[in-house]
Amino acid sequence: MDNNGIHRGGLPASGETAPDLLIHGGILLDMTEGKGPLKDVLISVKDGRIAKIGKSGDHSTALNHTRTEHIDATRGIILPGLINAHTHAAMTLFRGYADDLPLKTWLFEKIFPLEQQILNPQTVYRGTLLGCLEMIGSGTTCFMDGYFFEDATIRAAHEAGLRAVAAQGIIDFPAPGVPDPRENIHTAKEFLKKWGGFSTLIQPGLFCHSPVTCSRDTLEKALELSLEGSTPLQIHLSETLDEVQVMLRNTGKSPVRFLDDIGFLNPRLVAAHAIHLDDEEIDLLAARSVKVVHVPESNMKLSSGIAPIQRMRKAGLSIGLGTDGSASNNDLDVFLEMDTAAKLAKISTRDPVCLNAREVLRMATAGGASVLGLENEIGTLEEGKRADIIVVDLEAPHLQPLYDPYSTLVYSAGGSDVKDVIVDGRVLMKDRTFMTLDPEEVMAKVRETAHTISTI
Amino acid sequence: MDNNGIHRGGLPASGETAPDLLIHGGILLDMTEGKGPLKDVLISVKDGRIAKIGKSGDHSTALNHTRTEHIDATRGIILPGLINAHTHAAMTLFRGYADDLPLKTWLFEKIFPLEQQILNPQTVYRGTLLGCLEMIGSGTTCFMDGYFFEDATIRAAHEAGLRAVAAQGIIDFPAPGVPDPRENIHTAKEFLKKWGGFSTLIQPGLFCHSPVTCSRDTLEKALELSLEGSTPLQIHLSETLDEVQVMLRNTGKSPVRFLDDIGFLNPRLVAAHAIHLDDEEIDLLAARSVKVVHVPESNMKLSSGIAPIQRMRKAGLSIGLGTDGSASNNDLDVFLEMDTAAKLAKISTRDPVCLNAREVLRMATAGGASVLGLENEIGTLEEGKRADIIVVDLEAPHLQPLYDPYSTLVYSAGGSDVKDVIVDGRVLMKDRTFMTLDPEEVMAKVRETAHTISTI
Repeated sequence: MDNNGIHRGGLPASGETAPDLLIHGGILLDMTEGKGPLKDVLISVKDGRIAKIGKSGDHSTALNHTRTEHIDATRGIILPGLINAHTHAAMTLFRGYADDLPLKTWLFEKIFPLEQQILNPQTVYRGTLLGCLEMIGSGTTCFMDGYFFEDATIRAAHEAGLRAVAAQGIIDFPAPGVPDPRENIHTAKEFLKKWGGFSTLIQPGLFCHSPVTCSRDTLEKALELSLEGSTPLQIHLSETLDEVQVMLRNTGKSPVRFLDDIGFLNPRLVAAHAIHLDDEEIDLLAARSVKVVHVPESNMKLSSGIAPIQRMRKAGLSIGLGTDGSASNNDLDVFLEMDTAAKLAKISTRDPVCLNAREVLRMATAGGASVLGLENEIGTLEEGKRADIIVVDLEAPHLQPLYDPYSTLVYSAGGSDVKDVIVDGRVLMKDRTFMTLDPEEVMAKVRETAHTISTI
Repeated sequence: MDNNGIHRGGLPASGETAPDLLIHGGILLDMTEGKGPLKDVLISVKDGRIAKIGKSGDHSTALNHTRTEHIDATRGIILPGLINAHTHAAMTLFRGYADDLPLKTWLFEKIFPLEQQILNPQTVYRGTLLGCLEMIGSGTTCFMDGYFFEDATIRAAHEAGLRAVAAQGIIDFPAPGVPDPRENIHTAKEFLKKWGGFSTLIQPGLFCHSPVTCSRDTLEKALELSLEGSTPLQIHLSETLDEVQVMLRNTGKSPVRFLDDIGFLNPRLVAAHAIHLDDEEIDLLAARSVKVVHVPESNMKLSSGIAPIQRMRKAGLSIGLGTDGSASNNDLDVFLEMDTAAKLAKISTRDPVCLNAREVLRMATAGGASVLGLENEIGTLEEGKRADIIVVDLEAPHLQPLYDPYSTLVYSAGGSDVKDVIVDGRVLMKDRTFMTLDPEEVMAKVRETAHTISTI
């Protein structure tokens, strides 16, 4: 017997407990720094954590234990579940409702009015459930959300079994669920109080919409709340040139410099988009250990700009990958986001070598974990870490042949190639069958809501 | 009874023939200019052509005819099969073999030597079969190929049942199958002779590798061959800055101006990539009715540049969409290519309105048909045209809800959402089951070849 309670032969000794889950066969990409692919592995999971990573042959008898669930990864790649570090899951409700528009028209003439009309705890719950279904179906095991009615988001994520940081939206406009902006900090505070400690999987957070849609006073109060409980605080930062210009006009400073002046830049701050930055601002974000989320597809689709990812990586910033909401992408597939991130980096720097497949896969796993402050729990597959694991099936025409598993995952695979999804040791999808949610029901409920705003 | 032999009620009259295939239910996007979605359609197919497009209710009794095959599109979108107007299908053999490299290193140090080592009629046949499998599986019904051993490509496409223009590679280097470059024109001529008239689905063509890898003499002879039989002639044009610089050094002219000088620019010329062009060159290509293929993902991945698509569209050029070979993409999924094309257009022009979902879908259907000179046969769904039709299943989390079917197809769907594929009235995939190829066997044969060059 080894030190982790997994037997090399024979039945478990009396008093020993069998693993809850065994994943066997396949190629493991544990995504730790510097370690390459490992073939024919056997991973045992106990109490939500990875108990042991060994070779398939070593533990063959453990396969026979009746209480143990099995995942056959023989034909696949085993890797950490992907982390979608910036999304608004409930916006599945508006997927494809308003495309090919300028960001300001899209946001102020289409999305904001529609949100006012449609959003309530029930619709956010429905939309988020659909988002969770899509995320599970495409290999995302953890997401950072920012929206309104985040209580409903937490309900949905909990029901789905996903790991999440769910951040309550704070904005100085009348917002869904917070008609009086003066209530936004109070609402957020109550939200943190209500959900702190609710689940080891779901952490409540804060989401200040942007430096232009939140006043200085609101930002300062949100910051105070965040620092008080070491709560993740998300913000859309330097997403558009318009935002930068408004900040320059109103405060004489760029968004980053203004936020630094008010002490807002800190290690718990998660800055999504982070596009329009000069070198000094990048160094400032790095010096303050601010976390960054790269959102390439939404940035392209809304024509917001291209984030200087290579420069930020050189500055040593922790960078995760996000899809944004599916009203501006229009999907939550982090596999496709990785592909785009790599290609966009290459074309924008005119350097085909930069942001290679392994690096972008690190961004979507270990990078995302750092952004969320969960690097000790998830993001890599190591003994003792939480068992957030996915298996990608390679037996598909577009994934053959196999020379380099990182390349295959980033440049050829899509979310629909994910076969199994495990979060905290619990199987959420097995052989593409959803175990926690009823897809027909989830889709039907969203259609019911969408029907009230249907355009065709 | 209407004029197309389809009955509005009762059984077919004696002497009348039943349709071969009926597609019923669903939303039709026929992709003709200016026409919008049509709900609950019934499409009847006879002798490889679309006999009638009507409303679902009109022909309910025709559904009962025993000799008629049925496709249920109730939950889906019906559209023309996608056209991949630039690929090298057999390069599936090298998918993921050499990524994240500069184009010249990739091509001259990795791909060319590997091609010399591996390619022969058998391996090209195997690789192309895998490509065909992938194309069918992702809704492509017609492709323009350019490679060596194109006899093997034709064999594979024929077996798969796909429509294709298969163009024999011409290059002034020792090439696979043409060790002596002095033989390249002779080989191409024999190729055209052998395959002209072989099939109504597969047309032989010519593929001059590029203006820098073919001599003036070779280009002129290929042009002559092309004009003689009105044969499509493909070329990689202004793909890299390096190509432009070499041409300027060697001839004093840019690739486009040099080709115009030798009379090479003509309506049968298909220029793939077409990146490094000035306004005058674009107008020149338009004046000569040269066809263009936009290849955005490969251009991004190899960091070759961004084609000035909006400028070319304004100049009135016919533009199709291509994936390039899967060694530089790394897939043959035209759905994903549409998504990238739209997003890249928006970010590169800083105009989120340009190249909207409908326009990019037109590029991948009617646009591709024009590029191949097949606009009277395919590219739109109209009575009398060839029945190259696909059905996309909407019953998936990432495709719900539905507001705008164009947007859903371009921004949310992937190739794996395609349910049925029909080429020339023949069903190649039904409910995601391949009807003409055995996927296990095709994949196993490619693995066998890849094993000889495997890197992991």
